[in-house]
Amino acid sequence: MVKVIAFCTRYVDVSQLEILKEAQKSPDIKVVGVDRGAHYLANKGYAMDLAVGDFDSVSEEEFEQLKTNSQEMIILPCEKDETDSEAALDAIMKRWPDAESYFLYGALGGRLDHSLNNLWLVLQERFWSIRGRLHLIDDKNVVSFLEPGHHELVAREGMTYFSLISFGAVKGVNLSQCKYTLKNFSSDFPRSFISNEFLPEFLYAVVDFEEGLFIFIQSKD
Amino acid sequence: MVKVIAFCTRYVDVSQLEILKEAQKSPDIKVVGVDRGAHYLANKGYAMDLAVGDFDSVSEEEFEQLKTNSQEMIILPCEKDETDSEAALDAIMKRWPDAESYFLYGALGGRLDHSLNNLWLVLQERFWSIRGRLHLIDDKNVVSFLEPGHHELVAREGMTYFSLISFGAVKGVNLSQCKYTLKNFSSDFPRSFISNEFLPEFLYAVVDFEEGLFIFIQSKD
Repeated sequence: MVKVIAFCTRYVDVSQLEILKEAQKSPDIKVVGVDRGAHYLANKGYAMDLAVGDFDSVSEEEFEQLKTNSQEMIILPCEKDETDSEAALDAIMKRWPDAESYFLYGALGGRLDHSLNNLWLVLQERFWSIRGRLHLIDDKNVVSFLEPGHHELVAREGMTYFSLISFGAVKGVNLSQCKYTLKNFSSDFPRSFISNEFLPEFLYAVVDFEEGLFIFIQSKD
Repeated sequence: MVKVIAFCTRYVDVSQLEILKEAQKSPDIKVVGVDRGAHYLANKGYAMDLAVGDFDSVSEEEFEQLKTNSQEMIILPCEKDETDSEAALDAIMKRWPDAESYFLYGALGGRLDHSLNNLWLVLQERFWSIRGRLHLIDDKNVVSFLEPGHHELVAREGMTYFSLISFGAVKGVNLSQCKYTLKNFSSDFPRSFISNEFLPEFLYAVVDFEEGLFIFIQSKD
């Protein structure tokens, strides 16, 4: 089953490097470089299935390097109505609509407006069909999006804390098998429940809800 | 006219120190320390009008220091339903409901869930009356919240970029005197317009809108 890993920044940490190396050997992991992320990958000699960006400041040599390392390139105009991440996610979705998951690395941290813009992506109708399979990852946070239904939330290694932050109204929220529980909670406005904790006696925490959309964040300090 | 400056973290940068020093001389600037921020201020010998936190890990000596340096202290329980920032903002609002502005330093950056939680504060009904006067500040970002109406957005020193990100639906948005303009824009879902630019030929950018709530972010890289 296809997984897509996309790198939006030139900062790649050790755990991401492991995934990248694995991806080079597996045809089921598609690698996408987004703008500065594509530069980084090409420069380090990694093969990409897709490179997306405006690439306006690259030298001829760097451009050749990008071409050599990418199966496909999408060159965006410099002045555009959408961000590189948006364009990349759009392209990713069209190529691999049935992927099991989409991991965006380097879409958080740095400038607050960029982070928020990347979180807000999932509110665009064109991305609704994949938002339950989308994850934004940096070295301190793993972000997923929960749609109404039953969710078993498994703690990632080294991450004890989790937060649930809703984008809008929520209805019928039940939260159990964790430190702070909720029973049939509803709210007309967006709510934020942060610094909840996984408990060692359970394999996972459980959240069920009827209406709304949650940002689910696992984090470490 | 009273201004409130609140420090939520032990990291205080140079520009904030200047404001702190000014505040020590001016009775119109109220200084609030929130948890680790209060420690920092007490430790450096700054006087506070209010200190809020659970202060569960302080020594007797540190507690005395906090008491000496604070006009008033609010000691929160360790296990609580609200965050320190929420409790602090609530206390601030009750003491100085008519303040001209409220600046929260150190409420952004660090863990993503904390940053989002602090942005989400303004969605709570109890804070609606002050959200137009609330600003969250770190060394790279200044965040304000825009309610429907006419706004003249002045660039802060060294900050060319600005972003407008809506929490929910927006109606009748007009944006002018800046690089990317908008005319009578409406959307049923939250939208994000990032990396807009102030133009040197105008004293300010102009945004008008009829319905919604925008996060307005000025930033530098």
